[in-house]
Amino acid sequence: MSMTAEEIKDNAKKYVLQSWSRQGGLNPLAVEKAEGIYYYDFDGNRYSDMASQLVNLNLGYGNADINAAIKEQVDKYCYIGPSIASEPRSTLAKMIVDLLPDTFGKVFFTNAGADANENAIKIARLYTGRKKIFSRYRSYHGSSFGAGNLTGEPRRYPLEPGIPGFVKFFDPYIYREPIDFASEEEATKYYLTKLREQIIYEGPDSVAAIVMETITGSNGIIIPPKGYLPGVRKICDEFGIVMICDEVMAGWCRTGKMFAFENFDVVPDLVTFAKGVTCGYLPLGGVAVSTKIAEYFDDHLLSCGLTYSGHPLACAAGVACVNYYTKADIPGNVNKVGKVLADILDEFREKHSCVGDVRHIGLFSCVELVKDKATKEPLVAYGKDPEGIMPKIIGMLKEKKFMTYSHENMIFICPPLIITEEQLREELAKLDEVLAVVDDTFI
Amino acid sequence: MSMTAEEIKDNAKKYVLQSWSRQGGLNPLAVEKAEGIYYYDFDGNRYSDMASQLVNLNLGYGNADINAAIKEQVDKYCYIGPSIASEPRSTLAKMIVDLLPDTFGKVFFTNAGADANENAIKIARLYTGRKKIFSRYRSYHGSSFGAGNLTGEPRRYPLEPGIPGFVKFFDPYIYREPIDFASEEEATKYYLTKLREQIIYEGPDSVAAIVMETITGSNGIIIPPKGYLPGVRKICDEFGIVMICDEVMAGWCRTGKMFAFENFDVVPDLVTFAKGVTCGYLPLGGVAVSTKIAEYFDDHLLSCGLTYSGHPLACAAGVACVNYYTKADIPGNVNKVGKVLADILDEFREKHSCVGDVRHIGLFSCVELVKDKATKEPLVAYGKDPEGIMPKIIGMLKEKKFMTYSHENMIFICPPLIITEEQLREELAKLDEVLAVVDDTFI
Repeated sequence: MSMTAEEIKDNAKKYVLQSWSRQGGLNPLAVEKAEGIYYYDFDGNRYSDMASQLVNLNLGYGNADINAAIKEQVDKYCYIGPSIASEPRSTLAKMIVDLLPDTFGKVFFTNAGADANENAIKIARLYTGRKKIFSRYRSYHGSSFGAGNLTGEPRRYPLEPGIPGFVKFFDPYIYREPIDFASEEEATKYYLTKLREQIIYEGPDSVAAIVMETITGSNGIIIPPKGYLPGVRKICDEFGIVMICDEVMAGWCRTGKMFAFENFDVVPDLVTFAKGVTCGYLPLGGVAVSTKIAEYFDDHLLSCGLTYSGHPLACAAGVACVNYYTKADIPGNVNKVGKVLADILDEFREKHSCVGDVRHIGLFSCVELVKDKATKEPLVAYGKDPEGIMPKIIGMLKEKKFMTYSHENMIFICPPLIITEEQLREELAKLDEVLAVVDDTFI
Repeated sequence: MSMTAEEIKDNAKKYVLQSWSRQGGLNPLAVEKAEGIYYYDFDGNRYSDMASQLVNLNLGYGNADINAAIKEQVDKYCYIGPSIASEPRSTLAKMIVDLLPDTFGKVFFTNAGADANENAIKIARLYTGRKKIFSRYRSYHGSSFGAGNLTGEPRRYPLEPGIPGFVKFFDPYIYREPIDFASEEEATKYYLTKLREQIIYEGPDSVAAIVMETITGSNGIIIPPKGYLPGVRKICDEFGIVMICDEVMAGWCRTGKMFAFENFDVVPDLVTFAKGVTCGYLPLGGVAVSTKIAEYFDDHLLSCGLTYSGHPLACAAGVACVNYYTKADIPGNVNKVGKVLADILDEFREKHSCVGDVRHIGLFSCVELVKDKATKEPLVAYGKDPEGIMPKIIGMLKEKKFMTYSHENMIFICPPLIITEEQLREELAKLDEVLAVVDDTFI
């Protein structure tokens, strides 16, 4: 293949339907090569990836270990079906179980995060014999029918009328809560009391699972208050409900721990993962399952399946990727550089009148924009941005080659976990400048 | 990595949840290498893949062109997000559109067949503003909630209560129809009349799409009678319904044509594909969309999206794979060897008392087993096989290193499309022997 940048762009516009877009006005960038935290267009311009693409390229571009592992497996075989034992699949499953708490036993592999969540729901329903599934409003779990019905934000609307039995509850979104809590503990107590009450109204014996992003991702890096997740765990235990943590975005060292739930003194029953397990080098996802639940399927049919479950080439990439997190002490870098990120974002909250809140853990962070710090009125209303204010802000960042995305009134800063302190400071200086323009122009 | 066969198998049993299985009694084979239509265990035993794994490895194992394309793209970059133009994605989209009739315009890429069907439904609903989706009982479209609700066979049961608005209609399954038709044309007339009647009962203005496997795959290679698909097309046109052909299994030369619908003088609005587009070397699927429907999304939001939409490494494999079909004249081989397959299967129907029917097109075929040729009583009842008769038959074939799978009372013969006449004859001789045992033992 050897097309020009113009041909690549023209064919993309002419022949490719692009995710979550009106296709008419698209003018995509064409990328020639990529290395580390940067990618390059055909004119040699360098772009800084401050969102790790879709918060999945945790190790950035061109990781030599992953590339070598893919090539090595290609020389053996790329694919064999799920019913045949394959070395990369066996190896990765064991590695993942070994990284998880002792209560975990097996892994069911999928292609990505959406079908990981689809299968987690099925596993919970089969195991409990119950149907109802609780998930939260400020959440995104994928856009296929099952994952999209878990999703609470507007991307679920095209899937409605929804699947019977999918129930939404409120998030521990303290910044926008109409109540002023005296402490984090008070907030936790409030949220848990309301959740337990809602479960009782729905009928605890009909609830199969509670599904949560351990830390809410695209809907605003909502970090659970102290005691919240252990409290949900207690409710699950009280009523025999399966606790599912969606770690598609938050897992794989993004928060400075291998899995995000490790920050919160809690152990879920099922963990769904994708993104960082291969850093997108190949599509891969899965559900890690507790030994207790896995054993149920020793003599009950696991009614889950897909052609590429545990795809050998994807698992080979996964083995190299997961090994690299430890080998290169990625958690160490996340904790070190994450501290710098936290300090600078906290400064932005003080300094910029458009910044209502910043939330951060490890290298997982966002800036929430407001019209008024006191009233907290969002810069754009929920589900609405008729003037395209957020795209304009993302466009200003893009002009500075700071590449990220927005959601509602929030800008995400989730760089590859290999970023250095110097690189991060260079990029955040650009964000600082753009926020100053927002202070002056949009509010 | 360098595990022994025993370690690979032990870790598979200990750590991997296997699709569609009770996990307790599993004893998977471990594969060391694979080439052409064969794969090999660690003791050097050779297995003949007579199902192309899951009817996806159309070009068999170790295709040098696909392997080289993957390695070449690895050296550039493995992944870039869907909003950035990438050469392999642009190239593959154009190639697919060029292979389809002139009415097709764009491609939306997914990870596999299930999410291809999920997104096809969404596209049809968004385009029509209607909700109801028609699909058939003897069908499999995937196991995620949307695709699984399209599915008519028992693998949908764990997803019930189903999504509102998914309606099932009967298949053109002439062999098991309680009516004796005077001709194929009579059968077609009957099925179309019943389908049109059912649409009128459901309310034509509420029906968004009719989804069909062009040729039913795992549920029995049900080949539509002459005039059936053009008749469905006419009904769709009459009521403004989107016609969706699921070509996940039947597409990519399996029937001797690039796409299966080309056999039937019909052009659908959407075509879903996966499997053969990469032969499983990497996970990839998609929806090909007519220009008319694609243009609707120029100024309407395409509410579909996924992290790996148009994964560059997967698309690079797809470009090499799709090019190979033409370069190596795979349709030519399918038509030539498919004729041999057809003749031998037709002989089996005459020769073996356990063979009620055989159905074949290209290298897409199955043998339907019965207790009694006259009554057509299936060898195992629908959805039931308490004595494990079908697994025993598959086990006898496996002893002869003839590897395939069964579904209900059917055995599938769908080898890689590169198989030679000699190879096919060698394998079918094994099937002949096993069918003789079935004649003597099970009926």
